[in-house]
Parts: sequence; structure tokens; C-alpha cells
Amino acid sequence: MTELRIAVVGTGLMGADHVIRIGKRIVGAHVSAIVEPDESRAKSAMENAPEATWYPDIETAIEAKSMDAVLIATPGQFHEPVLLPALHAGLPILCEKPLAPDEESSLRIVDAEVSGGKQLIQVGFMRRFDQGYMDLREHIASEASGELLGLHCAHRNPEVPDSYHNDMLIFDSVVHEIDVVRFLTDSPVTTVEVKHMKRNSLSPTGLNEPILVLLGTESGVLATVEMNVSVQFGYQVKTEAVFQRGIAEIGRTSGMSRFFDGAISTPEHMSFKTRFAAAYDNQIQRWVNAVQRGTIDGPSAWDGYLAAAAVKSGVAALHSGSVEVVKYANKPSFYN
Amino acid sequence: MTELRIAVVGTGLMGADHVIRIGKRIVGAHVSAIVEPDESRAKSAMENAPEATWYPDIETAIEAKSMDAVLIATPGQFHEPVLLPALHAGLPILCEKPLAPDEESSLRIVDAEVSGGKQLIQVGFMRRFDQGYMDLREHIASEASGELLGLHCAHRNPEVPDSYHNDMLIFDSVVHEIDVVRFLTDSPVTTVEVKHMKRNSLSPTGLNEPILVLLGTESGVLATVEMNVSVQFGYQVKTEAVFQRGIAEIGRTSGMSRFFDGAISTPEHMSFKTRFAAAYDNQIQRWVNAVQRGTIDGPSAWDGYLAAAAVKSGVAALHSGSVEVVKYANKPSFYN
Amino acid sequence: MTELRIAVVGTGLMGADHVIRIGKRIVGAHVSAIVEPDESRAKSAMENAPEATWYPDIETAIEAKSMDAVLIATPGQFHEPVLLPALHAGLPILCEKPLAPDEESSLRIVDAEVSGGKQLIQVGFMRRFDQGYMDLREHIASEASGELLGLHCAHRNPEVPDSYHNDMLIFDSVVHEIDVVRFLTDSPVTTVEVKHMKRNSLSPTGLNEPILVLLGTESGVLATVEMNVSVQFGYQVKTEAVFQRGIAEIGRTSGMSRFFDGAISTPEHMSFKTRFAAAYDNQIQRWVNAVQRGTIDGPSAWDGYLAAAAVKSGVAALHSGSVEVVKYANKPSFYN
Amino acid sequence: MTELRIAVVGTGLMGADHVIRIGKRIVGAHVSAIVEPDESRAKSAMENAPEATWYPDIETAIEAKSMDAVLIATPGQFHEPVLLPALHAGLPILCEKPLAPDEESSLRIVDAEVSGGKQLIQVGFMRRFDQGYMDLREHIASEASGELLGLHCAHRNPEVPDSYHNDMLIFDSVVHEIDVVRFLTDSPVTTVEVKHMKRNSLSPTGLNEPILVLLGTESGVLATVEMNVSVQFGYQVKTEAVFQRGIAEIGRTSGMSRFFDGAISTPEHMSFKTRFAAAYDNQIQRWVNAVQRGTIDGPSAWDGYLAAAAVKSGVAALHSGSVEVVKYANKPSFYN
Repeated sequence: MTELRIAVVGTGLMGADHVIRIGKRIVGAHVSAIVEPDESRAKSAMENAPEATWYPDIETAIEAKSMDAVLIATPGQFHEPVLLPALHAGLPILCEKPLAPDEESSLRIVDAEVSGGKQLIQVGFMRRFDQGYMDLREHIASEASGELLGLHCAHRNPEVPDSYHNDMLIFDSVVHEIDVVRFLTDSPVTTVEVKHMKRNSLSPTGLNEPILVLLGTESGVLATVEMNVSVQFGYQVKTEAVFQRGIAEIGRTSGMSRFFDGAISTPEHMSFKTRFAAAYDNQIQRWVNAVQRGTIDGPSAWDGYLAAAAVKSGVAALHSGSVEVVKYANKPSFYN
Repeated sequence: MTELRIAVVGTGLMGADHVIRIGKRIVGAHVSAIVEPDESRAKSAMENAPEATWYPDIETAIEAKSMDAVLIATPGQFHEPVLLPALHAGLPILCEKPLAPDEESSLRIVDAEVSGGKQLIQVGFMRRFDQGYMDLREHIASEASGELLGLHCAHRNPEVPDSYHNDMLIFDSVVHEIDVVRFLTDSPVTTVEVKHMKRNSLSPTGLNEPILVLLGTESGVLATVEMNVSVQFGYQVKTEAVFQRGIAEIGRTSGMSRFFDGAISTPEHMSFKTRFAAAYDNQIQRWVNAVQRGTIDGPSAWDGYLAAAAVKSGVAALHSGSVEVVKYANKPSFYN
Repeated sequence: MTELRIAVVGTGLMGADHVIRIGKRIVGAHVSAIVEPDESRAKSAMENAPEATWYPDIETAIEAKSMDAVLIATPGQFHEPVLLPALHAGLPILCEKPLAPDEESSLRIVDAEVSGGKQLIQVGFMRRFDQGYMDLREHIASEASGELLGLHCAHRNPEVPDSYHNDMLIFDSVVHEIDVVRFLTDSPVTTVEVKHMKRNSLSPTGLNEPILVLLGTESGVLATVEMNVSVQFGYQVKTEAVFQRGIAEIGRTSGMSRFFDGAISTPEHMSFKTRFAAAYDNQIQRWVNAVQRGTIDGPSAWDGYLAAAAVKSGVAALHSGSVEVVKYANKPSFYN
Repeated sequence: MTELRIAVVGTGLMGADHVIRIGKRIVGAHVSAIVEPDESRAKSAMENAPEATWYPDIETAIEAKSMDAVLIATPGQFHEPVLLPALHAGLPILCEKPLAPDEESSLRIVDAEVSGGKQLIQVGFMRRFDQGYMDLREHIASEASGELLGLHCAHRNPEVPDSYHNDMLIFDSVVHEIDVVRFLTDSPVTTVEVKHMKRNSLSPTGLNEPILVLLGTESGVLATVEMNVSVQFGYQVKTEAVFQRGIAEIGRTSGMSRFFDGAISTPEHMSFKTRFAAAYDNQIQRWVNAVQRGTIDGPSAWDGYLAAAAVKSGVAALHSGSVEVVKYANKPSFYN
């Protein structure tokens, strides 16, 4: 089988990481094109992609027929202008989350995909490829602990840059839990409410967190999310699931334990890059394999839209302090 | 020093347990009187209290000068008729939680104590004597992890009898967290709100739980409580505290671990009796010691009143589904 | 029931601790006599024993009929001169380990007890009263994991004083494992062998450790002991038991866990005093209860002798580097 | 860069696994040849290697120039007849452990490699590529806990086939610890001694285990190995390292934890295949990368020889019950 030629669009932090990933750890694919307006960024990424050609924009890259598939890693507001021509060209796409920055543009992208008549878009909610979440989902499905009743999620970052602002708590961070709660429960988020813990004075000026987000789902399962981006100690994503007959917990990492200086300790991650390294690899390898079979293997554009709709209510809830009901468009039969 | 002569009032499950505790594990005290209207219960308890005399009611026992101090373990609605004559007789009292079943009677008891001019009542919120809670309180006070921002509490029972009903979720169970949140934060609970997880179909008919209780405090610290009384797997009370610089967790028990049948496991408690056995011992020993010094060493009648006021709002919140603000009477200077 | 009047003999570190323990935590007993040649030590201990009289030697104390029972906490070489008169006076005795510093004097004590015709001596191997060891023993007896095949013991001290010397590794420290291996396996130690790990340069001059001690038992169970007295990090005593169908582990402590500075950690003890505090309490309470029933409830003088005999071979093994076979006297039927 | 064409020699359990690994998870390589005398085995393996040609023997495969590198996964006694022609053809080789079944043939292979003048052989001691061992090695090197003094290794299999016999305890199983102890300490094993725990009656007839192996090293570090192949509960490989200032532990796995039925538990592996899956991937990926740079990246033929020499003493120790001193040939400067 010939290798899948991938165009990586956007080689900032995340895109540059994907270039290395595809080069070093993904089987059956290589980076054939770097699409990046910033030349120095492009050149830097190309050091890890010896077979790649540089294109300043997606249109030129498509015209040059330089790829079999597209991986989009630009900031969210630049997804749509890449997605639409790539869809038009009939190219399979892995689009980093979010699908688009708002519900409306997400729906436009969904419409474009439906019009094209073929499912081409997979959205990069990489947590679905994390072993913990996969194990928990399987455990829920098995009903070995009975029915799922609730979820307690903690999403903790050691710190964020000063540019990180309040709405990002929802659209950049909680969006992961919004997707994963649906992934775990097979049930959409129907309500969002936001409470504030005492403000962390170590947070950047103007940022009011940690927050507690309450996600109601159609199934009746209630999820709580501690969203905490200045906790200093480490990067930790964990979930405790409450069942009829017991509890399951994922996200406690382990590793070499040290008995030292009056305590027994194990290390925690400091960044999503190491915490979810295997999930990213797994996501892209399964996508590459799926593309070669002519399909996707992960969250669809419709999943991306659903997350965007819930994020919209989440941001509203952050501002209103009230319970916000999420409204979804009707699901096109195309996605069944 | 002569031993403290204790009258145990009410020898149901809890009172009978205290009789054994005082006889076997508490230094400097013995049970001198059993006050219990039910003769067979009284006789049964007296098997573990060889020096005790039986009295059918508190008045007769007081008249007989049969005790130096009173431990009240009757159901909550019968506390006041025992507390008042004991107060009147100037006797030190350890009263099982709740101080009284409602805010009004709690306030009457407070008034009676204030009128007497001497602090005689200690309320049996035994969690304050649990090593975990004491460690966490000390850790908060030390500010070693920075300022406290939030608390996540889980309070899980394997099961409850069919007689357990919805309001008991608050006044019988969450009352512990209401007290302990104040103990940890040194700040009263100012708001209560209740959310429902998916109902556990293993719960007794009519009981709608698990619930999620949100306790706001004056300090700004937000506490969440998963109150879950049918979780089957075990009796678990744990708390995760969110600080500026990290997290602290108490309530994970340990013990002999087994590597068996594909897993590594450690045992969990099945009842509050074993989970808090050391806390009960500690509470009563410290109370006995304090009484011999002419004081109390634990939550006061005022603490009991504060819990009752917050419970009142909690029950209202359970019924209304809204945020209920807790209103407190002014604190008598007597308790400063 | 009248309280047991206990004479505490020797109020160095350990004896002074027992005086406090009996005063504060043991039910049904009080310290009636302090037997201690050093007046200032005696006075200091008496501050925690308001009902005690001071005696410079055991004979005077016995003559004064000042006690119902004797707790011996002098250094090991001074046990025999206290034990013999106390035995002669028919007094129940709890004697700190070791029973005596060598096999011969241990046997003399055994003989004296046998001659007296009544079992009066209990030896202070407090680990038998530690919850972990009790759980493990019960688990072995239950055969829930199948037959016991081997034991891995670790006995770690943060540091020892400069006066601690090589033979103490065996007679002062490993003696605990020698007793507890027999307690767990119900089978005497038949062979001892000592290996050296790389020497810890933080050990006091002349001390050559950590060592690895191999204890063979009559049952075929092999026990390894890492004896390590300069490990700095904490005081840790743990055992891993190898069964036919799995493993059991005791001695991992827990407590409040902290998520801080890139790691998740739980505290370890720094001293046997806290690590075994509950075991000491439990040992003495059960001894007091037993004495009031006219019996003992723990390791006997014969157990003390068996440990002394194995220690003798252990010290020989430390010096010879060879396997040393333990020889025991015949067990008097008195101890069956 | 063109892909490395790998011939997999021997497609039994392990070889077939490597074929899948190379096809699905290794970047920059594919299986170009299956060398396997058994046609049905070969055909079965080729289902996962679409680009591979079948050869019944290595000579024919070499003659056909069907590979750039060779991965040998035949049983140990068949390594030499594959290694020698491959060496002769100048092909890079990854040879599953052991290099050869005995010291003499290992030395012959070393000689052949030295004569060829180029280091071509890497031996498949995959534990060196396990994250735990790598972390521990780094921790030792950092001296963050001080100097390393000793190691406690446990190597536990749930069960072994009836064909597994006593010597295999050493040459098939403990050989891993022999290599890894050297890897961790950078110091060769100088003595081997074997002790027996109580025999597990669940072991296959004639197999006398678990055993305790004592490995002395030139550095003075003493390693103990519990070698246990019938422990039923799971596949567990863990090591506790004793330092001057504390302890480090690797090999405690984690994963989704369940709170269920009175206990909190985490899963253990049941097979080396899952326990070391990432180590195998890592080993082969790094080997492929190294081969493309014209070198090796892991244990050399000389490491394989050293292990074989220590295994020889280990088997002697198993039979003699005595301390056996390991004798090594002089190290050819070629390997410096």
C-alpha cells in the first residue's frame, strides 16, 4: 500500500508537533506538504518533514495535488477557510478541535460536507483515543458496575499564558469535557451551568477561575467539571464515574515512585503534550488507517457541531450565571 | 482524679455502641446510668456497663444524682427534652448530632445554655475528630499549598433502610458536610443548592438520589457534595481540596493489599462504625478530658444551631431546586 | 472491677512513653509505681503518673506491695534481675523485647516461670498487635490466596545513633522479624544467613549495612529481610507475602495525599513511635484485660526464648557469612 | 528515506507478533521476507505482511537479497545458524534473547562479529526499553537519592506450560534480571546463588519454584530476584531499588480503578505481551532508526555473551545450592 501523503496546515505549536509525530511514529503516512503563511515557521517544521513542499496557502497546495489528506492545526477561526476548499477537493480531513469557533460556522461546515455526499471530516477530540477514556466507556457499556449515574471531571493546568481569557475556559478547555461526556454517555449535553470557586489569585489578571461547570445530559447523567487553569502543581485530567453499584476512576497517572524525605510520591504530568501523547499518536494512526479504507474513525463534523452548540450555551452560562439550555439543529440523516 | 460518671441517654444502635466504647476504650470515665424508657434495651446495654443503674427518664436520673455528665444518643426529636433538664442541672452534655431536628428548637437550646451562663453542650460532629479532617484543616491553616479555593466531597453509603427518605439526605447525611465545611474553612455556609444525578434504581422506593449539593461559604470557597446512599460497594467519605498551588485529598483508606485474580486491591469500609471508629473514640476521650477541666473540646451548641439553620435551607433547596440563602441569628457574645 | 495497679520499671525513652500511654489511653489500669534508680528520670515520669510512688529498685517496690502487675522497660541486660523477683512474687509481667540479651538467660527465665507453675510473662513483641500483621496472619490462615510460600520483609529506619553497632542489626532490629515470621507462619525459624548490600556511607562509622537476612522456617517458607537503618527517608516496616495464587502486602501507610510540585505524595512515618503507636496501645490494653482474667494475651516467655535462640544464630551468621542452623531446647509441656 | 526491508526469521508466537508490530506500528520499515521452515506458519504470518516473500531458510533469503536487516525470533538453539550467515552477509541483526543457548556459542558469535569488523548485532533484551527501567536507570545516574545499594526484583508469571523446566527459571526467565541488573548498575554480575521458597503445588510436575536468586555485582550492589512462574494472579515485573537516602520502585501498573464490592482495585497485566508491548515497540523502532544510521541502539552481542556467562553460573547455582562465581572472557576492545 502506498503511503498516505498528508498536508499539515498550520505549523504553530500543535502543527509542528504533528509533523514530528507523523514523521517519527505514524505508519503508512508522511508529510508531503506544509501549508503555512509564515515562512520561518514553515521552514522550521520542514526540518522534520524531509519530503514536504512548502505552500503558503491551501488553495495552491490543492492545485499542486500535493496531498492525499489534510491535517488542520491552525487556530480555530482559520479552520473554515481551509476546510471548505479541502472538502471541495474531496480530501479527507483531520481538523484539530474546535471544528470552528462558533455554532454557525460549524453548521456551515456540516452543510458543506453533507452537500459533498461523503463523510470526509474527523475532529481532533483526542481524549476519545486515551486509554483511560476508552476503558471507562467500555466499562459503562458493559454495565459491570450497573448503570452510569454521574461523572466528576477535573481538568487542571499548571498555568496559562496571560492571553488566556474567561470565555476560553469554556470554548478552549471545557469543550473537551463537553465532547467526552457525550462520548462516555452516548447522550448529548442538554444544559450547562457555571459556578465559581474562590478565585485563584495566581490566575492571570482578569481571569476568574477555577470554575465548576455542571453539564446535564439527555440521559439524566449529571457531569461536574472542575475547570482549573492555574493550579501550579501539574497537568491533570481525571474523571470519577458514579454507577449504581460503585465507582470507576480514570486519569490517576503512575510511574516510578520515590520514597524520599518523609513521603512516597509518584510524578504527575506538567503538560497535555505528555499526558495525551499516546492519545494523539493513536488518533492519527487510526485516522491514517481509516483514510486508507476510505472512511473516518473518530468524532465527525456533526460531533464538532454538537460541541460548538454546547460551547455556545456554556459561554452564555458563564456570563449569565443561570442554567442555559442547549439547542441543537436536527441531525442530518447523512450522519446516521 | 476520680472517674467521670456518665449517663448514656438512649441505648439504640448508637447509644449501645457508646456504652461499649466508654467501658472498653475511654480512660477516666465509666457509664454510671442508662437512661432508656425501653427496659429490654436498657438491660441489654447494661451488660456492658456493670456499674450502671437503669433510669426510665432523665429527670429521675438527675434527681438520683447518678451522673457527672450526660451523653445523649436518642433520636434527634428527643434531644431537647433531655438537654433542657440536664442544662438546668448544670451537667456537661455530649449530644449526638443533630443538636435538634430544626432551627427553632436549636435556637431554644442555645438560649437555655446562654441563660445558664456556662458552656455545657458539645455536639457530636465526630468527623472533626477524624485524622483526615484534622490533617486537612491543619494543611489549610498552614497555607503550604496556598489559599483554599474549593472542596469536592463524596459521602457514599452502600445502602440505607427503606425508612430513609429524601429530606434525610440533607438533615441526616449532608449535615456532616455542612459542619465539616465550616470546620475546614472557618466560614459559615451561606447558600445551598441541590442537583440530581440520574436516580439509582437500587435506591429505596421514593428516594431520589444520588444528589449533588453545592455549598457556598462566606469565604468564597465553594464545596460540592456527592450524597449517595445506595452505592453498594462500600462506605466512603472523602474530600478533595483545591488550593492555589495544588490539591489535597483525604479519605482514601488503605490496609492489606491483595494481588489476586488479575488485580491489585485494597479494602474499603462498609459502615461508618468502622470508618469513624477512631474518630468516635477520640471525640469522647477528648470530651471526657475537657469535662474534667470544666470545659468542652469540640463543636458547641452554637455550631449545632448553625448546622440546623443550614440544613433548613438545604431541605428547602432540595424541594425548590433553587439556590437557597442561609439566614443565621446573631451570634451571642457568649460563644466568642 | 478495680483498676490494675502497674509498676513501670525503667523510665527511659520507652518506659516514659508507656507511663503516658497507661495514663491517657489504657482503660482499667493506672501506674502505681515507678521503679527507676535515676531520680530525675523517675520524677520526670511521675509528672504523667499522679498516683505513682517512686521506688529505686524492684525489691523495695514489691515489698511495699505497690503493684498488681509489672511492666519492664529497662535495657535488655537488666530484665532478668527484675523478672526473677517479680516472678517470685507471683506478679504478672509485660517485659519489653528482648526477654533477655542471650539465649542462656532467656532459658533461665523460662525455667523460673515453669518452676512457679503459672504463666506470668508476656513479651513485648508489639508487631503482633499491629493491624497489618494481624490482617496478614488471618489471611494466611484463611488460605484465601492458597498456601504461603515466602515473605519479603523490609525494615527501614531513617537513622540510628552512633552507639548502634553491627550485632544490634540482629538482636535489636531483626529480632522483630524473627518473632513475626514465626507469628505469621506458625513455624520456628530454623536457619539464618546474612548477606550484605553495598554499604551505606551515611551509616555510622563501623556499621556495615544494609544487610539482607534470609530466614528459613520449618514449614519451608523462606523469609527475606532487608535490614536498613540509615535510609534517611522514613521509618518503614512492610512485608510482601507470596502465596500460591497471589501476593499480599502490608505496611504501606497512607494519609492525606498532596498533589504538589509535579507529584502526588503521601506521608511516611519517621519513627516506630508513630508507626506502631496503635500496636503499643492495643498490646497493653489487651494485656491489662488478660491480667484481670488471670492470663496473658500475647507472646510468652517461651516465644521470647525462641527469638533469643534464633538471634544467637543470627549474630553468628552475621559474623560467619554462612548458613547457621538454629538449635532450640525442648519445649516444656507447660507452654502447650 | 527508503523503508528498511526486514526479514523476520521464525514466525512462532514471538515472530508472528513482531510481524504485526512492524506492519502496524513501526515507522520506516516493512517485512520483506518471512524465513520459516514451516509453511503453514509462514503463510499465516504473511497475512500481516503483504509485501513479504516466503523463504524456507536464511541462506536462500540472503541469496535473493530480500532484506536490509534481519530480526531473529527462532528458539534460542537456532540463533547461531541464522546469525552466522547474516553476519557473513553484513546484515544488521536484531536477535531475540538469548543471543545463544550457552556461553560457548555466544562467544563464537561474538568472535564472528569481531572478525567482520562492524557491530551488526543487537540483542532483544526489551526491558531496557521499558519506561520504568529507563526512569530508574536515569534516577540512579542522577544520584538524586544518593548511591544505589541494592535491588529487590520480582518476576511473576501467572503460569507456564508443562514443558517449562527448572533450568528455564534461569536461562529463560532470570536472564532478563541478569541483563537488567547490569543495565541499571553498569556493573557485571559476579556471583549467583539460588534459594528455594516453599514449592508452589500449582507448579507443573517437577518444577521446583518459586526461587530466590541472589545476584552479586562488581559494584557491591546486591540484587535479589523472586522468580515465580505459577503465581496465578497476573504477570508482574517490578523492582524496588534501595538507595542511600530512600527507595525507588518501578513496575506497579495502574489503569482504571474500580470501587466495587468492598474494595478499590486496579488491573494487573496477565502476559508479558501487554506488560512490555510499549517496550517491544520502542526497541524495534529505535533499532530501525539506528540501522538506518548504520549503527545499533541497545544491548550488543557482548551484552548477550555476558548474560550467557552469568546464566551458566546461575544454572550451576540452581543445581549446586552454592554461591557460583561468574567468569567472563576478556572484553574485545571492539566493544568499547
